[in-house]
Amino acid sequence: MSRSVRIVEVGPRDGLQNEKQPVSTDVKLELIGRLADAGLRDIEATAFVSPKWVPQMADHADLMQRLQRREGVNYPVLAPNLKGFEAAVAAGAKEVAVFAAASESFSQKNINCSIAESLARFEPVMAAARAAGVKVRGYVSCVVACPYEGPVAPVRVAEVAARLHGMGCYEVSLGDTIGTGTPATVLAMLEAVADRVPLERLAGHFHDTWGMAVANVYAAYDFGLSVFDASVSGLGGCPYAKGASGNVATEDIVYLLQGLGADTGVDLGKLTECSAWISSVLGREPGSKVTRAMRAACA
Amino acid sequence: MSRSVRIVEVGPRDGLQNEKQPVSTDVKLELIGRLADAGLRDIEATAFVSPKWVPQMADHADLMQRLQRREGVNYPVLAPNLKGFEAAVAAGAKEVAVFAAASESFSQKNINCSIAESLARFEPVMAAARAAGVKVRGYVSCVVACPYEGPVAPVRVAEVAARLHGMGCYEVSLGDTIGTGTPATVLAMLEAVADRVPLERLAGHFHDTWGMAVANVYAAYDFGLSVFDASVSGLGGCPYAKGASGNVATEDIVYLLQGLGADTGVDLGKLTECSAWISSVLGREPGSKVTRAMRAACA
Repeated sequence: MSRSVRIVEVGPRDGLQNEKQPVSTDVKLELIGRLADAGLRDIEATAFVSPKWVPQMADHADLMQRLQRREGVNYPVLAPNLKGFEAAVAAGAKEVAVFAAASESFSQKNINCSIAESLARFEPVMAAARAAGVKVRGYVSCVVACPYEGPVAPVRVAEVAARLHGMGCYEVSLGDTIGTGTPATVLAMLEAVADRVPLERLAGHFHDTWGMAVANVYAAYDFGLSVFDASVSGLGGCPYAKGASGNVATEDIVYLLQGLGADTGVDLGKLTECSAWISSVLGREPGSKVTRAMRAACA
Repeated sequence: MSRSVRIVEVGPRDGLQNEKQPVSTDVKLELIGRLADAGLRDIEATAFVSPKWVPQMADHADLMQRLQRREGVNYPVLAPNLKGFEAAVAAGAKEVAVFAAASESFSQKNINCSIAESLARFEPVMAAARAAGVKVRGYVSCVVACPYEGPVAPVRVAEVAARLHGMGCYEVSLGDTIGTGTPATVLAMLEAVADRVPLERLAGHFHDTWGMAVANVYAAYDFGLSVFDASVSGLGGCPYAKGASGNVATEDIVYLLQGLGADTGVDLGKLTECSAWISSVLGREPGSKVTRAMRAACA
């Protein structure tokens, strides 16, 4: 019996948001289209955040209006507050994502408020989303460690995840933001979180900065997780370690999960073509060993 | 209780043997010295093979003669036949490695004889090694798949591993030569091999061509394996897929194993410095995410 795994593609948002060079709306739309062609059914499209803070996502409304929606594909967008939520819905978003940190220092430095304040800020978003029939996904960052505080206790991650789930997030994505986790720390964290939130409501979001992401996805899958975030070609880099990699490449975890017998619904050939294409647009080598190996094997 | 793991560093041999650019004996000796400084206790130094086939290792005798041996460090060398063995011992080698394939096509194309013929060729090597008190390690390549035949049945790997062990190899290193294995295929293979050879006589040798090596080391460690081969900075590349990566980087698996609580005896800081040094000598970025992340974090 093959297990079904949902891959949430975050390249167009979490990926491109962390790219230094600006990417045109046309390229973003083509990327989203190619990802859907490859079989991805959850594609995070953009972020409704201030262009002052995130200029890479300044075209959010234009992008959503021009987006050619496909039947059966979800296009969640990031919406950090009620203002972002309203703009997202006005632009046609049917699913949004909110984000909190499991580390106080990270929360303060990244979103300029405490964890408790950030959660309070989501309450009106959740209420508006319920009224509008919009699904809300929750992100928790720093689930293993924080760039400012170091290791984060699993019980603190569980608390934030439980709060987001309790507020009405249909899924909580657990992010190893700085990618220092290994299967040991990841499993300890998952055990604590799974005590508070049903496993089928959790997603894993692993960064490959220290090369551990594929092993962490394997450990989490083996633990019972069935939803994973990833970024085609590993788009994104790591804002906390310049020159290092960020999001795990979607191709690499699709290859892993297919190898483990999971059904991801993704066509790996098309996905690596998409990865090679966006990498050439950005003028660099694909950030995925699977794509590089497949290209080398075909050369 | 922390588990002890032995890392067999294969960078100076399996790594540099697959590098296109020639590396001087001085650089090789410095690399071996720096690896020993970092705490590695098994450093594969060179190969006593014909310089016609492997020009990168043509300096084998000179290197062994100039090698400054450290107390407690082993310097195994590759010796494919009796002639190589005799030259290795004459040059001062106290441990050699022989290699066989689990795939007939690979054996034919790589060493120009059948698996059975290659094993027969090792018999006089084993006898001479016993007489000389030299330890022999056995490599099996293509333990998951073959570049010519595709998937290799676990039972065939087990047969070759059992033959090498039965001949007197103190350890059999199982190589995923083309790096296509995932924890599913690796564990199936390990189960079959462990039926024939005691687990404590087995080593894992994973190539990261498809980005799966760290996950495979994790799965194999979890299965009970305690010896892993790796190459500093991922030196080596993949001769079967130009431009793709080969050996898993030693730094990456040391980071993983330390994270899992294993005692590797390796100083990760010194090892990443060694990785950065040899990469700069070769004029390229380190092929290790751990080294890149550590450098970025310190920048």
